Amino acid sequence: MEGEVKEYQVAALLMAIYFQGLDPAETRTVTRIMMESGERWTWSDEGGPLGDKHSTGGVGDKVSLILAPLCAACGVRVPMVSGRGLGHTAGTLDKLETIPGLRTDLEKDDYDRLLREVGFAMGGQTESFAPLDRETYALRDVTGTIESIPLITASIMSKKLAEGLEGLVLDVKWGDGAFLRERERARELARSMIEVGESFGVPTEALLTDMESPLGRTVGHALELKEAVEVLKGRDPEPRLLEVTTALAERLLVLTGAAPDEKEAGRAVREALQGGTAFDKLVAMVRAQGGDPAPIEDPDLLARAPCRLEIRAPQDAVLAGLPARRVGRLLVELGGGRRTKGEEIDRAVGLVFPRAVGDRLAAGEPWAVVHARDRTGAEKARGVLESIVAWSNEPVPPRPAVTERLSRMQ
Amino acid sequence: MEGEVKEYQVAALLMAIYFQGLDPAETRTVTRIMMESGERWTWSDEGGPLGDKHSTGGVGDKVSLILAPLCAACGVRVPMVSGRGLGHTAGTLDKLETIPGLRTDLEKDDYDRLLREVGFAMGGQTESFAPLDRETYALRDVTGTIESIPLITASIMSKKLAEGLEGLVLDVKWGDGAFLRERERARELARSMIEVGESFGVPTEALLTDMESPLGRTVGHALELKEAVEVLKGRDPEPRLLEVTTALAERLLVLTGAAPDEKEAGRAVREALQGGTAFDKLVAMVRAQGGDPAPIEDPDLLARAPCRLEIRAPQDAVLAGLPARRVGRLLVELGGGRRTKGEEIDRAVGLVFPRAVGDRLAAGEPWAVVHARDRTGAEKARGVLESIVAWSNEPVPPRPAVTERLSRMQ
Repeated sequence: MEGEVKEYQVAALLMAIYFQGLDPAETRTVTRIMMESGERWTWSDEGGPLGDKHSTGGVGDKVSLILAPLCAACGVRVPMVSGRGLGHTAGTLDKLETIPGLRTDLEKDDYDRLLREVGFAMGGQTESFAPLDRETYALRDVTGTIESIPLITASIMSKKLAEGLEGLVLDVKWGDGAFLRERERARELARSMIEVGESFGVPTEALLTDMESPLGRTVGHALELKEAVEVLKGRDPEPRLLEVTTALAERLLVLTGAAPDEKEAGRAVREALQGGTAFDKLVAMVRAQGGDPAPIEDPDLLARAPCRLEIRAPQDAVLAGLPARRVGRLLVELGGGRRTKGEEIDRAVGLVFPRAVGDRLAAGEPWAVVHARDRTGAEKARGVLESIVAWSNEPVPPRPAVTERLSRMQ
Repeated sequence: MEGEVKEYQVAALLMAIYFQGLDPAETRTVTRIMMESGERWTWSDEGGPLGDKHSTGGVGDKVSLILAPLCAACGVRVPMVSGRGLGHTAGTLDKLETIPGLRTDLEKDDYDRLLREVGFAMGGQTESFAPLDRETYALRDVTGTIESIPLITASIMSKKLAEGLEGLVLDVKWGDGAFLRERERARELARSMIEVGESFGVPTEALLTDMESPLGRTVGHALELKEAVEVLKGRDPEPRLLEVTTALAERLLVLTGAAPDEKEAGRAVREALQGGTAFDKLVAMVRAQGGDPAPIEDPDLLARAPCRLEIRAPQDAVLAGLPARRVGRLLVELGGGRRTKGEEIDRAVGLVFPRAVGDRLAAGEPWAVVHARDRTGAEKARGVLESIVAWSNEPVPPRPAVTERLSRMQ
């Protein structure tokens, strides 16, 4: 941070770590140094325990938008700090900002007030957390050393630990659309993050979740926000999205002590969704963060793309596969994602998949709807989708959404 | 060289190569790029074939001072470019400059004249060879990536190949005082350099030679020059020093075609040493490079240290070991070496070992003579030598000096 160590030496160190790895104690040290380079939050004793979730990112992943108000409704204070989208995965913050007027540039004072008044807050990556990680990340980006388990661990955990949590759940995705495609690599990252979290006294668990195909039925900012709102209203949630969200919420309730055990946590989560208290928390947060709650109450008021195009099954067949990464890139091509930092995005465009992998469709039945700016974009997207979708005549077993749970004991 | 690639990216690349290595084609490419970053010499067709030797460096290694005039006397033109000493190994150039007036800052024009008039020349590392290697080496130094076989190969061979040779012999040392201590690593480096040399059409061979203890009887600039001169005069050469030097010379004669086979090469080398023609070549070179030949004719005229201290065997015993690296460092401590580049050195100080490892000594017989600036330095050196020398009651077989010969076919 003071320029004392030259960039070329840091670059060489990063490459050495990339190839040689770090042991748990070294990973912890790097995490600590990064965390201590910036601000660290502490909280008032009043209110429930403090918890948060981190996801390694996926396509159609709107879990945070549901999980934060859901856990808040169950008594956990959630000071959620989220990132923006880059590349084939869209960011929670960008989805949230579909709501007119909503502020995400929150300071610690805002978090204090929001946690007191609402129970949770959702803001953007503050500059004050782990500035050393920002510097290091920029250098990793230009030296090809991003994909290193210990460096990813330190980057994620230094910021999450700076939030001052009492429990942390990690959604580590694997499969086509995940940052780490291989399950074994995802497991390795999960173990490394759990080890570091626990070594700082923060109860930490991870779920490995499947990211072969998009999560839920929608991909795109306004569309995903709408899907999240409908899950919070208890309206016909897509089963895999519900499975991932409730599993993470239940573990966070148990980890933080907000629920005595898994059974009670499950009950609390179900009640918060069915009873509307989770949805009420979202509305309260939107209001408290300066947003207009109307499009939350009635998601049809959210931005809508002018052109819609239904894509239909060519014949009776089972939907066998929909590669998530290519779908994520398609959103970028429609204008709904960033190729470079700071780029403007169109929050209205996106894709809806009314049917899931494993479903049998009749010939002519719509399996995708493109929401595009214009007909040309929509037709291009159709071409891509028809080229990547896989059909089968045989039954295709649905893939489980949560494939593994990891905690320190394992 | 144009600053287009950032230093941090080069540093990351060097570290990646350090851990991942390069395959032969990649090593050749890096060597070629480095070589092509600078000047490349070509020679007149008149005169013998062009050959040179490179050594990875050792303690007491005065082979170049003997080999260059010896091969010149046998009909090989030797445009030898040598380095300065740094750390525990002294440099050929520094030893040569013990001769008053002798110029080593030779330009290509000087080499042309010297090869025409004398048959060989010994100059310093020219700035015009492989400037990219210089830049890269500086970055390797500060990023801990010096010890990488492909990078060492490219660094050495880019400069040697720029000399425009028709044959190259490599003295790759292993053991305590060598740059690469392990024999297997030395072998790996030898193979890599041979592969690159041959791929550029330069017949290249390597000898692996032992560097557990110092080579020859002397360590120190004036002392080593004197020993070299005495070998050239055929006066009682130390057997291991003679073995390494003649083996390298013979292979270079065969490789360049200056001798039809090993037998003829051996005969030519013996005659040049015994007949005085090798020594005459040295005198001619010294004269042609502006030096005073008197101290070559009579080495007692060379600089001499004011204080001498004999160290004697404490009892009847066999000299079992004398670790070369520590002896090399001792020369630096006496003032006869550089800790940092450009430092002044005392060319008169040094060490003489009248007896070799494997010799049986009587109690009180001198086994080392310290040549120091003063009594304090000499006593300190005595302490070090007495602490590192190993004695044995059992016979100790002498170690062979040349342990392996490597050529492309192997």
